[in-house]
Amino acid sequence: MKYVIIGGVAGGASAAARLKRIQEDAEIVIFEKGEYISYANCGLPYYIGNTIEDRKKLFVQTPVSFGNRYDADVRTLNEVLSIDRANKTVKVKNLRNGKEYEESYDCLLLSPGALPIVPPLPGIDLPHIYTLRNVPDCDMIKQRAIEQLRDGAAAVIIGGGFIGLEMAENLQRIGYQVTVIEKAPHVLTPLDYPMAAIIQKHLQDKGVKVVTETALTGFTEKDGLLEVQTDKGGAYPCDMAILSIGVRPNTQLARDCGLEIGESGGVKVDAYMRTSDEAIYAVGDVIEFPHPVTGKPYCNFLAGPANAQARIAAMNMVYPESVRYSGSVTTAIAKIFELTAASTGLNERHLKQQGLSYQTVITHPAPFATYYPGGEPMHIKLNFNPETGRIYGAQAVGKLNVDKQIDTISLLLKHEGTIFDMINTEHAYAPPYGSAKSPVMFAGMVAENIMSGMMNPIQVEELDELLDKGEEIQLVDVREIQEYKTGTIADAENCPVDELRELMEDLDPEKKTVVFCEVGMRGYVAYRILKQSGFTQIYNLIGGMKTYRLIGKHNRG
Amino acid sequence: MKYVIIGGVAGGASAAARLKRIQEDAEIVIFEKGEYISYANCGLPYYIGNTIEDRKKLFVQTPVSFGNRYDADVRTLNEVLSIDRANKTVKVKNLRNGKEYEESYDCLLLSPGALPIVPPLPGIDLPHIYTLRNVPDCDMIKQRAIEQLRDGAAAVIIGGGFIGLEMAENLQRIGYQVTVIEKAPHVLTPLDYPMAAIIQKHLQDKGVKVVTETALTGFTEKDGLLEVQTDKGGAYPCDMAILSIGVRPNTQLARDCGLEIGESGGVKVDAYMRTSDEAIYAVGDVIEFPHPVTGKPYCNFLAGPANAQARIAAMNMVYPESVRYSGSVTTAIAKIFELTAASTGLNERHLKQQGLSYQTVITHPAPFATYYPGGEPMHIKLNFNPETGRIYGAQAVGKLNVDKQIDTISLLLKHEGTIFDMINTEHAYAPPYGSAKSPVMFAGMVAENIMSGMMNPIQVEELDELLDKGEEIQLVDVREIQEYKTGTIADAENCPVDELRELMEDLDPEKKTVVFCEVGMRGYVAYRILKQSGFTQIYNLIGGMKTYRLIGKHNRG
Repeated sequence: MKYVIIGGVAGGASAAARLKRIQEDAEIVIFEKGEYISYANCGLPYYIGNTIEDRKKLFVQTPVSFGNRYDADVRTLNEVLSIDRANKTVKVKNLRNGKEYEESYDCLLLSPGALPIVPPLPGIDLPHIYTLRNVPDCDMIKQRAIEQLRDGAAAVIIGGGFIGLEMAENLQRIGYQVTVIEKAPHVLTPLDYPMAAIIQKHLQDKGVKVVTETALTGFTEKDGLLEVQTDKGGAYPCDMAILSIGVRPNTQLARDCGLEIGESGGVKVDAYMRTSDEAIYAVGDVIEFPHPVTGKPYCNFLAGPANAQARIAAMNMVYPESVRYSGSVTTAIAKIFELTAASTGLNERHLKQQGLSYQTVITHPAPFATYYPGGEPMHIKLNFNPETGRIYGAQAVGKLNVDKQIDTISLLLKHEGTIFDMINTEHAYAPPYGSAKSPVMFAGMVAENIMSGMMNPIQVEELDELLDKGEEIQLVDVREIQEYKTGTIADAENCPVDELRELMEDLDPEKKTVVFCEVGMRGYVAYRILKQSGFTQIYNLIGGMKTYRLIGKHNRG
Repeated sequence: MKYVIIGGVAGGASAAARLKRIQEDAEIVIFEKGEYISYANCGLPYYIGNTIEDRKKLFVQTPVSFGNRYDADVRTLNEVLSIDRANKTVKVKNLRNGKEYEESYDCLLLSPGALPIVPPLPGIDLPHIYTLRNVPDCDMIKQRAIEQLRDGAAAVIIGGGFIGLEMAENLQRIGYQVTVIEKAPHVLTPLDYPMAAIIQKHLQDKGVKVVTETALTGFTEKDGLLEVQTDKGGAYPCDMAILSIGVRPNTQLARDCGLEIGESGGVKVDAYMRTSDEAIYAVGDVIEFPHPVTGKPYCNFLAGPANAQARIAAMNMVYPESVRYSGSVTTAIAKIFELTAASTGLNERHLKQQGLSYQTVITHPAPFATYYPGGEPMHIKLNFNPETGRIYGAQAVGKLNVDKQIDTISLLLKHEGTIFDMINTEHAYAPPYGSAKSPVMFAGMVAENIMSGMMNPIQVEELDELLDKGEEIQLVDVREIQEYKTGTIADAENCPVDELRELMEDLDPEKKTVVFCEVGMRGYVAYRILKQSGFTQIYNLIGGMKTYRLIGKHNRG
């Protein structure tokens, strides 16, 4: 069998290695239009920021070493121009000498990845506007960053997604004043606002300027500097701009040869990673696949799933229909200065788009035993189905052990897990690693309290809506007096939870009452006391003052 | 309803808090024979080692604060002497004044924990022999450790389990020369030897003396020092000895009142945490419960499950048979100097005891992207059913991200997961947190290669058995020549994998052949090349040289 692979980075290289291990006499040709194969795409921002010092480390394999180990014909700087499905051939251009030729295949794998979105705006072709998808992009940015670095150099990142923010950190690290411009109401749109707000504040604390709800309109040049222009009128002079708006599946070859393209714009594949042509498989950023939670196809642009798909495709290319792919719930993470931000599954925006009703829990658990030194609370947001308890998605932000919580929830999500499964997880516990109740268990327990009617939640946004309307609410801050004095919500009274059984005499049990504490735990205890003492309309504020302080509008004192 | 709770530490205090939140008018009496409730049991070694400096941090709640918040009657220094099930009363002794009295209950919770095993050996009552279960134990050790610390002070830990090794680290930290004496062939018996050997070497590198296959026979006093005596004849003079041999469920009260005791010696409970008496529930170290993998009851002595059980018991005490407990797969972890050791499920000893046939995979994956700085390989051992792929257990040792892998496998274990589920996990990946293929996925892939016949494994112990017998084996070291020169196995020849397609001419395809590399990956590639080139009896060494170097007997050079 002769296998032709288009694209030699994540998916293509993995598939080739696996193919050869399955079938030693397989003939494998890899076409890669770039100069490199199998390189560390996700490491590029860290090479720019000098965290990775040695450029060689970015290359997992060279074309020669890979070719030797897997007895594969690796042709870099060879671009596939078209696919002739009827004759099972590809037309290729050797970019070294400009010559075109044909190559036949028995079975083809499409792994051309994604292309960065570059909007056709005025000035888009000016120098020092970069995208970051591959090694040449990276080399250009690095060259500019090092060779032309001046005192007070400025960089503008357009798009505050995971990679945009990784770039913000890394460019600041090497001396740039960084501004992030984001069209949406907040950065990191995979996260909901209460979580993204923590990152946004951290960026500002670190000296990165964050501008939201602001769209790029074009570029000009002024006094030798690039100037980024926006719909809000402000112009941002800078030494370089990074376009990090997003990517789209590189479907040109697939479209040209008539392969079926799906509703979200990726190449359509079945569970065996096979396209609408039996002899052509596709993996990685170029495909779309149904989301395990919604059942709707989407493109996810993540390295982990691309690798998993490549392994599955290789097996099916040799033994058709032998292994099925189960889809990705979109689990992603990034380091942003001292914080980690991670998410899995659906956020509120997705849930609203899908018309799914959901409930939300926000907690601020310690990353390990509170008495063990060095920990600061993390922040978790859980979205779930309040009827069935099914997990829809989760997000977490914090300094330590954030990844572990999201990995656990991601695994449950893949298996259609519920908040009850979260409560029933079992984790490796010792004081340096966790608490007897893990953050995952704890978030599940709060969700269960809501589902079982043990607690009636109110979100910060909901409370603010009532306060904006001037609705009469009995606000009860159940923290200690010293905490109350540092700031509270609107005209809240202070009734510390441990004295509540006496102090509640002064409260009106008929009035709409919202209790809150710092994080929600004492609020829950207070809720239970009042609820069982005849208070009729009572709510516990989800996320407590810790969340209110960040995103609430009626902070006092 | 009047609830009486016996034991106010982990399980008892959690259950009381939950009870009150469910039922504000519940009358709750907690009897605790010690002075403290709800304290940080697992933090005690770290308080001794000064990692936790402030003793107050050990106390999550005081009897007064807890009583106020949950409107509970907390009676510390009150010991329950007996339970009268017919009349639903307990006889209690107030240890402050010696007076005895009776207290009635509607529903009782037993949470008396476990007792350290103290063998009746000669000299066991000498001073400076300690166990570590509670705050007074801890205070005594701390007092001895600080007040009588002299230059060259020595401590002997008897028992090299998780807590014994935590104590070894913490006592060394404050100035002791520490010796660990372990009866078994290696420390950390929840781990199999290839993993425990890494910890043992680390302890020795850190200056802790480790003596295995040696049993305690008694104590004497000599020149003002304590002397620990063993069956191997050596005597170990020391300033203090810590007995860390194990614990047993504290079932005295349960036995005396005729509650059913199970086959492994714990109080028998049903899935609702109810004992053989409908009005008595039990949680924590005192109970036994069926293991989800074997179905056999056992006692697990872990804080996480105790907390989970308490929450479930409280619910069922108010609403009988409302929540079921699903059991614990025994997931445990400890920090041992710079390393983390963790395990979940069954080890080889358990598997042999249960007569289960299993296969084993050992891998040495990086904790995150290899090109991201600061990582050192971890070590994972996976035991699984080679017929069905069901996971039996896993162990991991390393510096970073060990807990995360074990948490994921623990969750799969609880859901009867397989190695295929391991491959299909989805984790939060960015270079500082992981690799596109996680260690969990990678171990699953190696296991799948074995199950599917893609690779025929040989364990270090199996290879050594063949070499000991003098069996003729073609040993092929497929690493680079520079690696080969640093040391190999017996009379292995060197055939670097990337040249193997040429060099294999010199090998005999009919001979029993074992290939190996540093960790097993190149070995696998070499295996596939040789296998598909007509070699008939070929094996890949599991764990490669990294494991062989630690536990193999025929190291050369």
